[in-house]
Amino acid sequence: MNYIVKDENAIYYECAYSSDNALFLKLGSEAFFITDSRYTIEAKESVKDATVIIDSDLYGCANKLIKKSKVNRLDFDPKEWTLFNFEKLRENLKTTFVSKPDFSHKKRIVKSSEELLLLKKAVILGEKAFDDFSKLIKRHGFKTDEKMLTFMAKAMLSKKGKYELSFDPIVAVNANAAKPHALPTDTILYKKDLLLVDAGLKYKRYCSDRTRTVSTRKDFEFGYEQRFKNKKIQKAYDLVLKAHDNAIEKARSGMKANKIDALTRDIIEKGGMGEYYVHSTGHGVGLDIHEMPYISTKSDTIVEDGMVYTIEPGIYVPNEFGIRIEDMVVMQGGRAVVL
Amino acid sequence: MNYIVKDENAIYYECAYSSDNALFLKLGSEAFFITDSRYTIEAKESVKDATVIIDSDLYGCANKLIKKSKVNRLDFDPKEWTLFNFEKLRENLKTTFVSKPDFSHKKRIVKSSEELLLLKKAVILGEKAFDDFSKLIKRHGFKTDEKMLTFMAKAMLSKKGKYELSFDPIVAVNANAAKPHALPTDTILYKKDLLLVDAGLKYKRYCSDRTRTVSTRKDFEFGYEQRFKNKKIQKAYDLVLKAHDNAIEKARSGMKANKIDALTRDIIEKGGMGEYYVHSTGHGVGLDIHEMPYISTKSDTIVEDGMVYTIEPGIYVPNEFGIRIEDMVVMQGGRAVVL
Repeated sequence: MNYIVKDENAIYYECAYSSDNALFLKLGSEAFFITDSRYTIEAKESVKDATVIIDSDLYGCANKLIKKSKVNRLDFDPKEWTLFNFEKLRENLKTTFVSKPDFSHKKRIVKSSEELLLLKKAVILGEKAFDDFSKLIKRHGFKTDEKMLTFMAKAMLSKKGKYELSFDPIVAVNANAAKPHALPTDTILYKKDLLLVDAGLKYKRYCSDRTRTVSTRKDFEFGYEQRFKNKKIQKAYDLVLKAHDNAIEKARSGMKANKIDALTRDIIEKGGMGEYYVHSTGHGVGLDIHEMPYISTKSDTIVEDGMVYTIEPGIYVPNEFGIRIEDMVVMQGGRAVVL
Repeated sequence: MNYIVKDENAIYYECAYSSDNALFLKLGSEAFFITDSRYTIEAKESVKDATVIIDSDLYGCANKLIKKSKVNRLDFDPKEWTLFNFEKLRENLKTTFVSKPDFSHKKRIVKSSEELLLLKKAVILGEKAFDDFSKLIKRHGFKTDEKMLTFMAKAMLSKKGKYELSFDPIVAVNANAAKPHALPTDTILYKKDLLLVDAGLKYKRYCSDRTRTVSTRKDFEFGYEQRFKNKKIQKAYDLVLKAHDNAIEKARSGMKANKIDALTRDIIEKGGMGEYYVHSTGHGVGLDIHEMPYISTKSDTIVEDGMVYTIEPGIYVPNEFGIRIEDMVVMQGGRAVVL
């Protein structure tokens, strides 16, 4: 198969190295990694099973290689390419470019044992960061605003610069947690408030992802057991936790993703709060923080052993509160195992 | 003119608000801002001179609006669109889409007085952050690695979460500074080392950008006057500063950008170090950290009053050291004024 890859993580998957300005070309039995001179040393040391080419004009270089190879058909992912760069790539070529949306993500949907170890390590480091963050809040985090709390979360997740983050963490207090993708505000955290934290970090490029919603009593931890003073919140919390546990307990390899989605959704709907569950149950995690399989009402992907994804049901009551509980699971021996 | 805009900053420029999932459509006398339900409240409060439409399917929604409007021609920037999204946008439309690379950047090249005030504020905050960072290094930063120093720089720039950064700061010690886009390593900073810091922050979405290279004596500051113990470094430093000062002194409105580039390049070439000056003199700064005008050997853009750009000559001797001095200037009354 002949194909060209542009996305940084998709390239990394092909040849064990990548940079923010690179292309990967597979032409028959030959493979090429093209990047600019800023990355010469690292590329030559790290790229596996591909010829490293240094060229400031990535697209012109790939164009020449394709022309020289005389391949007739070349697969590409239309989500990776801007029209501008794609025109440069195929200038004056007679090759047929075959649109294959998500072809790298499809390849990567089942994780190898090496990948699972890296994901597990990322999850362990992420869990430790949540512990560190709870200790920091108990010492210095009350009467502090969400922006500062977000800064503190980043410090704990990155170990002050050692690790990269999977995404900008969400740190939301009370009603702000009702926005599934809340941005930090000037809202101050007090004791016994509701606090939602959604955060992860990367270990050797592999992502972790976790959400906890807690009542910030003076000895709180980012665990599953939480006691809220408000009864409506407690009821919603118990329902989300039940939905989360139900999916982890009952998900099986061979199920369609929409059936796994139903394992959380049915519980929340039966609890009378279905209208407040405004997103999907989860998404795959790997080199990208969002990848296949997508666990949604619309997805008929068959979930199989070796796939890694999140289970993250939530209830969001506008202007009141939001709750989400999220863990990453891997399908092993036919069942979901929490990473 | 009819046009569609997808880039977040380009949209902000059109209607004073944007989100990470939005489109802006100008169809004759009508304008539309389309985003998803996460941003309903903010969009309705902030969007100026456009109708706000909330739709989870941005492309389908835009497609219908274009169809209904019956416009024949619609401009777009091919750098903003992936093939995948563009196909969704124009599905079954008879409209001619006219490729206009950089059309938003071209509009934004001359800054308004309001924009200049925001840029000035960003620069002042950035300068303050450099001061704070030098104080922090003098107290806690020696015998610390680049990763931790980068973390400390981010803390000072963001005021612990209050401001967003223009880009991930570059904090590079000695030989690591020889890479113009150095990533932080485990290299430790000691007193009298060379330290290069390239960093900026955003004020109301407008970016600042500044580089200083210093000898970290015990009372160092991020100023222009620096004394290095190594004579070759001192010679290179003096040359870069001379090139920087020369361009600021002699740049004039009406000059081509490549002539301004020559104002730094000629000095470094005459000093015998031209081979180590491996990049352009500068780039425009505004809502984007890199925008027009580009001050390079290849650019024949005419520089005019109201344009804002960086002057940032450098000398990079591989495996030895790197030096760069960067300020933002605005063209006013025909001359370059440091912001």
